[in-house]
Amino acid sequence: MVSIKRYKKEDMVTYCLGATVSMEYLNIRPKDVEQVFIHSAFYESETKEKIKKICAKNSIPVEVNDKVFSILSQKENCFVIAMIRKYTCQLEKSASHVVLVNPGNSGNAGTIIRSAAGFGVKDIAIIRPGVDFFDPKVIRASMGALSRIRFAYFDSWEDYAKTDGAGDRHFYPFMLDGSTLLHETKIESPFSLIMGNEATGLPASFSKIGCPIRIEHTGNIDSLNLPIATSIGLYEATKGDF
Amino acid sequence: MVSIKRYKKEDMVTYCLGATVSMEYLNIRPKDVEQVFIHSAFYESETKEKIKKICAKNSIPVEVNDKVFSILSQKENCFVIAMIRKYTCQLEKSASHVVLVNPGNSGNAGTIIRSAAGFGVKDIAIIRPGVDFFDPKVIRASMGALSRIRFAYFDSWEDYAKTDGAGDRHFYPFMLDGSTLLHETKIESPFSLIMGNEATGLPASFSKIGCPIRIEHTGNIDSLNLPIATSIGLYEATKGDF
Repeated sequence: MVSIKRYKKEDMVTYCLGATVSMEYLNIRPKDVEQVFIHSAFYESETKEKIKKICAKNSIPVEVNDKVFSILSQKENCFVIAMIRKYTCQLEKSASHVVLVNPGNSGNAGTIIRSAAGFGVKDIAIIRPGVDFFDPKVIRASMGALSRIRFAYFDSWEDYAKTDGAGDRHFYPFMLDGSTLLHETKIESPFSLIMGNEATGLPASFSKIGCPIRIEHTGNIDSLNLPIATSIGLYEATKGDF
Repeated sequence: MVSIKRYKKEDMVTYCLGATVSMEYLNIRPKDVEQVFIHSAFYESETKEKIKKICAKNSIPVEVNDKVFSILSQKENCFVIAMIRKYTCQLEKSASHVVLVNPGNSGNAGTIIRSAAGFGVKDIAIIRPGVDFFDPKVIRASMGALSRIRFAYFDSWEDYAKTDGAGDRHFYPFMLDGSTLLHETKIESPFSLIMGNEATGLPASFSKIGCPIRIEHTGNIDSLNLPIATSIGLYEATKGDF
């Protein structure tokens, strides 16, 4: 039996907390699932049977172990935990991307991943420093959709722009003073929707990159919340596509 | 001095946790602010001076009291708390509304309030059972934008429809199997965007009300998160308005 500790960024493994989240990884990336823990109080027999079946097929050990839950989960309604071996992805160079510049909040990152997967944009670049996408809080907020996307970290915007962001691609930095209104813009593919940090937004230098976009709103708020702005951008960029 | 306890739904007062959130209430609804607490470690002199000035002008007592923070706030970066007397609002019958049917999550409710204020939709109806809008978690997630909207509770959809939702109004229930795609629809004002519970969505009976709307997305996710879907609806409904 492995020894389980509270998640740290340096760890080689991470965790899906909850049955729905774990099922996503079991369905989409079963080869990356190291082990599944089930709580003794878990009586949802249909889901339990499904989990056991996938695990048997993929030779994934299943263990009933309540202690793991008290270490890893603060939520009362968590009865399944999948332990995931961390993996690396390569962005698809010809596809549309979301670029998160210094994202700071795990829940927000997870919500953005869920929206990106929903709108069929499967590649996310993160410019450091940025939240750890393998943090269990991110995976949980994504509802397991992290399993369906590719993501990669870059030390700077320039690093991204000259590698995975290179080529025939349209840049759309989202800025509070963006010169173009989102609803008046035709977002051309492949695109990179570029979003700044929750508190500080994008550095002013981004106004010289591609086509700076503004989502029009009243002065009643300073800004939309980050996953909201990102998702509205994704919605506009992909509407009618599927 | 008043005795401060952890917030409960039955209380006559609620709390804005944090300087930004408190400033919204002090600016927008100063008459509803009973008292302001400042932490002894709060050294942001400009904000502090602004707060003191508004409080002096409106005869709001200001107290340095660290104990209140340990009782009311789990966050380390909270240095200002405004105590708010609860108030009641009346929805504006001729305006557009957001209708939340059984909303379950405080953070989501706050994010929706922030988006609604941002897109200039200032009236929110809540169909019971639903999250307590005066919960400090809601107010904080709204970034204080709760101060800028009107909200009211109704025991049932029918109660809303025959009172504040009556008259010449267009109903748009958002449903995963909605018959009309959002991006192909002209949302007519005044509108009611009707959103279901996070886990269960709207009851099937809503498909017979107004024009059921679907936000098109891939099958990679079951649904968009509730504030995301609501905000995309608000964006589409109001774009070009301001």
